[in-house]
Amino acid sequence: MTLYHADWAWLGGEEVAARTLIEIDGERIAAVRAGVDRPAGAARLAGVTLPGLANAHSHAFHRALRGRAQRSGGSFWTWREDMYEIAARLTPDSYRALARATYAEMALAGVACVGEFHYVHHDAGGARLADPNAFGEALIAAAADAGIRITLLDACYLSGGFGEPLRGLQLRFGDGDAAAWADRVSDLRGSTHARIGAAIHSVRAVPAAQIGLVAAWAREREAPLHFHLSEQPAENEACRTAHGRTPAELLDEHGALGGRSCAVHATHLSDGDVALLGGSATATCMCPTTERDLADGIGRARALSDAGSALCVGSDSHAVIDLFEEARAVELDERLASGQRGHWSAAGLLRAATAGGHAALGWPEAGRIEPGALADLTTVGLDSVRLAGARPRTMLEAVLFGASAPDVTEVVVGGRRIVAGGRHLLVEDVPRALDAAIAEVIP
Amino acid sequence: MTLYHADWAWLGGEEVAARTLIEIDGERIAAVRAGVDRPAGAARLAGVTLPGLANAHSHAFHRALRGRAQRSGGSFWTWREDMYEIAARLTPDSYRALARATYAEMALAGVACVGEFHYVHHDAGGARLADPNAFGEALIAAAADAGIRITLLDACYLSGGFGEPLRGLQLRFGDGDAAAWADRVSDLRGSTHARIGAAIHSVRAVPAAQIGLVAAWAREREAPLHFHLSEQPAENEACRTAHGRTPAELLDEHGALGGRSCAVHATHLSDGDVALLGGSATATCMCPTTERDLADGIGRARALSDAGSALCVGSDSHAVIDLFEEARAVELDERLASGQRGHWSAAGLLRAATAGGHAALGWPEAGRIEPGALADLTTVGLDSVRLAGARPRTMLEAVLFGASAPDVTEVVVGGRRIVAGGRHLLVEDVPRALDAAIAEVIP
Repeated sequence: MTLYHADWAWLGGEEVAARTLIEIDGERIAAVRAGVDRPAGAARLAGVTLPGLANAHSHAFHRALRGRAQRSGGSFWTWREDMYEIAARLTPDSYRALARATYAEMALAGVACVGEFHYVHHDAGGARLADPNAFGEALIAAAADAGIRITLLDACYLSGGFGEPLRGLQLRFGDGDAAAWADRVSDLRGSTHARIGAAIHSVRAVPAAQIGLVAAWAREREAPLHFHLSEQPAENEACRTAHGRTPAELLDEHGALGGRSCAVHATHLSDGDVALLGGSATATCMCPTTERDLADGIGRARALSDAGSALCVGSDSHAVIDLFEEARAVELDERLASGQRGHWSAAGLLRAATAGGHAALGWPEAGRIEPGALADLTTVGLDSVRLAGARPRTMLEAVLFGASAPDVTEVVVGGRRIVAGGRHLLVEDVPRALDAAIAEVIP
Repeated sequence: MTLYHADWAWLGGEEVAARTLIEIDGERIAAVRAGVDRPAGAARLAGVTLPGLANAHSHAFHRALRGRAQRSGGSFWTWREDMYEIAARLTPDSYRALARATYAEMALAGVACVGEFHYVHHDAGGARLADPNAFGEALIAAAADAGIRITLLDACYLSGGFGEPLRGLQLRFGDGDAAAWADRVSDLRGSTHARIGAAIHSVRAVPAAQIGLVAAWAREREAPLHFHLSEQPAENEACRTAHGRTPAELLDEHGALGGRSCAVHATHLSDGDVALLGGSATATCMCPTTERDLADGIGRARALSDAGSALCVGSDSHAVIDLFEEARAVELDERLASGQRGHWSAAGLLRAATAGGHAALGWPEAGRIEPGALADLTTVGLDSVRLAGARPRTMLEAVLFGASAPDVTEVVVGGRRIVAGGRHLLVEDVPRALDAAIAEVIP
């Protein structure tokens, strides 16, 4: 039994609890008691302790683009060309190193679990590697290296647009058809720290006739199924031209919506799309810092939630890795769009960044500080200039709206301490690891 | 002569210069040479050295609201009630302590100069204090305590709305009329680190007939003149109802626009307003994190700049104090509104956060690393996870889009080092100072 004693802990309500003793047995929480003094043998967690954060949408290699992709201006579509240049250079080894360092950066930011939406599968010409899942396995190993859990959302990516073949750098994303994708992905194995899920890259990239097979694969395995949805108006227009329906309607028609599905971005939706996603209990993953960066627009997070869609958040392109910034941006950008404040409580946004994300990634037993849950803890120090002045009654608000990734001091994942005093215990020098890994893949 | 040697320095172009020797004589820069080795006796500035940042719009006491004002939802107008509760409790002594700590937080974030838009002038009932400028002098002293420069923008605040008297907590903002305001403000004295400017709180708060007198006061002294402009649609509607013109048109009519004027927010503007501000060379101060927080909307920063209005940025309500976040938010929010990327270069945004802000605050000799300029330097360390992987060609982009306030390691203001290794050299424990000062003013 390992004992932690949190000065303050968020146990799921609208306020924090004082002096909370958390008993951990193996990888699970055995008991939680608030309002008790620290017994001998309990390690103090100074500050506010939250459940471990879940980063529900990641493309790990995009970390190498940080800063670089700001020079060129343009649009989502020209940004994609910059991104392809890096994708072209990845090998399983170089990607493992880059993902290890990127996941370590996430761990330092309080992330206990990542959803890796993974589409770089083959060699540069599109041929299978000797081990057809070498890339996916590299990502699973990278998460283990960094001490965090992963759901590998292996993406089916077959076409370069409606009725368009894959071209150039896209070739390495493609499996030919959904049956070949399923064959390959069925060989992937999870482990204690890793689960396997499916992804439909987008309705641009998976022809309508192939969507059902990917959805069926996920359904049979009770695995999460994620997809990029309506990130840009051009996707909606092309889908309507090709199929006479919106992307959400097309996915619904082919059985891709439901309680284990998650729509990423969901930016440009009709009222009917919102009703479809909410009514089917499809989750929504907002990635606001990326959606700002790529000029996507402001998604209808509140309307989706009201309709029945659970919210989670992701750092996606990793322009920044800071889930506090992602979570508050959901609220702040909705304020910009609506002229009103208070669409979400701080607790509601924290739920999105914890239990919401874990549920969408197929870890419903994580994201809460309660007996039986996976023992994931993220502690935010209160001794910075950013959080100075916080008081118990509004401490959740102070953290959610005022904290940044550097304020995370302690992280425990599945009972194992991976960050202490703001230092990663498994990856010795994370900035150096990032620097070296990025040098390998920059064109 | 003091010598600093910067690994990298931004000297105003689109890229950084390597190995730059900066010679300082007193409070000014004497010489700058790029591409030279570090001589004996020169202190190394590791990372990227920028000119000191200018925070062009601050209400220091709002720092006490951080987090707290997120509980209640509502609108700009209900937020204002929360803010008034704190304003009601300020004394010159408690405000000096709070401003000292808040300015120290700014210094740690790389700020060399603050524009304090100051409107808490009198006692709670509106009567003059024994020293009628005790509050303004407290703010000037607080900036000295924290080692930064200040432009005290003393705000004329006479009415509670068009044709409405001041009420309740607003009474302490008011001088009765602009002549009495001018009498009081004329007694304020600048110093090496402080200059005096004027502010028209807004067209809501200064009756049209009084605007000209404030503008004339500033013009005679060649002092900056700032005003909140069209932050909320309700202000525009009320102004049109009362005067048949927009707030920008009203200010123009009464002589308040011009090359030493600065419009803060400038969110809801007509094309005609944009032409008026740009054509008169009135500067624009965007405060995007506050504008997000208060559900104001996205201002037309690019259009204003194209029309001739120089950009600067401010942290305003201090929901966060991070000028990198403010500067990138100008670009990112414009992306959300337009669907396009690349409205500003990283250098353009850095100019807004440095020379642009200093110019708007009446310090045209600051904000550039060049001979003759005030010796203000802000160094961003590159050894964090946030900036790991940055390369010289896109280092400005990495800093502008990836850095956060905690990445600032060194700050020199007017030749004096005030932050070293991320620690404030004048205010020993800034978080504790904030905590204590906030405890004094929280209702």
